Amino acid sequence: MRHLLLTAAAAASFVLPAYAAEPAPVPSPGEIAASAPASDWVAIAASDLLVMDLTPDATGKPRRVVIQLMPAPFSQGWIGNIRKLAAAHWWDGTSVNRVQDNYVAQWGDATEKKALPTGLATVPEQDYTVPVGQLVIHETPARGTKPSPHAPRGDGYAEFTRFSGGWPVAFDHAREWPLHCYGAVGVGRNMSPDTGAGAELYAVIGHAPRHLDRNIAVVGRVISGIEHLSSLPRGTGALGFYEDEKKRVPIASIRLADSLPAGQQPKFEYHSTESDSFARYADARANRRDPFFIKPAGGADICNIPVPVRPVAAK
Amino acid sequence: MRHLLLTAAAAASFVLPAYAAEPAPVPSPGEIAASAPASDWVAIAASDLLVMDLTPDATGKPRRVVIQLMPAPFSQGWIGNIRKLAAAHWWDGTSVNRVQDNYVAQWGDATEKKALPTGLATVPEQDYTVPVGQLVIHETPARGTKPSPHAPRGDGYAEFTRFSGGWPVAFDHAREWPLHCYGAVGVGRNMSPDTGAGAELYAVIGHAPRHLDRNIAVVGRVISGIEHLSSLPRGTGALGFYEDEKKRVPIASIRLADSLPAGQQPKFEYHSTESDSFARYADARANRRDPFFIKPAGGADICNIPVPVRPVAAK
Repeated sequence: MRHLLLTAAAAASFVLPAYAAEPAPVPSPGEIAASAPASDWVAIAASDLLVMDLTPDATGKPRRVVIQLMPAPFSQGWIGNIRKLAAAHWWDGTSVNRVQDNYVAQWGDATEKKALPTGLATVPEQDYTVPVGQLVIHETPARGTKPSPHAPRGDGYAEFTRFSGGWPVAFDHAREWPLHCYGAVGVGRNMSPDTGAGAELYAVIGHAPRHLDRNIAVVGRVISGIEHLSSLPRGTGALGFYEDEKKRVPIASIRLADSLPAGQQPKFEYHSTESDSFARYADARANRRDPFFIKPAGGADICNIPVPVRPVAAK
Repeated sequence: MRHLLLTAAAAASFVLPAYAAEPAPVPSPGEIAASAPASDWVAIAASDLLVMDLTPDATGKPRRVVIQLMPAPFSQGWIGNIRKLAAAHWWDGTSVNRVQDNYVAQWGDATEKKALPTGLATVPEQDYTVPVGQLVIHETPARGTKPSPHAPRGDGYAEFTRFSGGWPVAFDHAREWPLHCYGAVGVGRNMSPDTGAGAELYAVIGHAPRHLDRNIAVVGRVISGIEHLSSLPRGTGALGFYEDEKKRVPIASIRLADSLPAGQQPKFEYHSTESDSFARYADARANRRDPFFIKPAGGADICNIPVPVRPVAAK
């Protein structure tokens, strides 16, 4: 790409071929992740994928959103409820009801009258956080729980942040909690902290609303198809709710991927945040040295270091 | 709203009326800004507003995006070019060509062949920043340049951040620079830092890409109508460019507001970042105490403290 900037005369004046005349360009963060060895990528279990199919768009194109549920021990009470709601097909025929610019797209039963399945847990306030250092790593082989050596500097919301088991988290000396980064999926609730069952969910579609951390349960993140939520028309009512019922976006179905026929299960993998290649990726996000950049920042906020996730090619 | 959570029996058991039985609710940040005295709001000059009218949407609704240009001394070389481009009606008939999810919407001449007006400046790399503390406050009366007492803690990208003259900025001991927060408008360029004339512009429509600070010129921010950019379909080509020319969103016109007939000029004002009420607003953004919240964060990142801007009601 740098050659695009040379005039024809300047290009013709090169005596040495370009590959010798210029140093190799520094790889971008994306290139670092893409070239990481296969062993640095971790398959996501089908049982941890929530597949939301909106009705097709105006041109008939399908709109699939895939959500990865958080691993234990985070938010497991709500996630248990979500598994039951998906198994009951509870969301089928509900809708996306609220799209607030630079904030969230939210879905569930707009009538607020649909009966919930029996057996859902009421999850207490203390479960917004977990004891620090208790993260169970769902990786094979297990890689331990060492904090990333490239924890970002200067978080505005917490004493410490790190990547652990593929997720950005914050912690202090006692508790640890998940973060509201772009794409995070959380549990809507009423005023009392224990009122969110998991039936009303939202995805972050703007600048990370980290003030919600420890105030709302984060249960997962959108790993594919977020554009089907983030590009929806914004609601014109208070908080971005659609005032006109016809604007609501119907949900055809929400299923756990392992309940789909084997050939139809989406497969994804994430870049192990305990790998050396992820450390290089995170460092490159904080210090851009690829050719476009002139001033490496020397730091980054953790929500601006998205954990790479990619589909697994069919074999 | 707290009463919504009371059962009918609990509500009936109140002996004292609700306003005596419960402490007054703590105002939200938005409520603090809305109740600020009129003297804490600063009118934005029509000469600092760039009015972009996209062609109407499929239902015939107008799509107007209003951009506030940054005050001196920031990015003035590029802003001078932008004023000339608007005066020449250069953007009329160009289009939004690129919409990349969680990043930017970008507009300009997709053919890259349209001749620029004569007399545009080539702005050097050093103008991405300015000497620290040189901000000229465009307020009446002038309020000085004291840093906000509620500068957010823990920035991931700079030694210091503050609000100054209505804008979030970062600085070190020598230089000061504007930030890529949500809605920021910047100047697209090629690899060399001095190649951005100001004809190719973008707006941030995702998590603040602060790694671009000091690497690209920030020239303003969208203060109205960003949903007309942020809810556009994402481009499917590399970097979110529209692969199909028909997907491009035509720009009817871009004008400086002071070139519009007096009765048609949009009028906006911003919450003075030097006011006591803004300090309370910023503190409330960092420490949510309104009834929904259970854990005030104790801090915030500066891009999550958006400076309130509102239309001025016609008299």
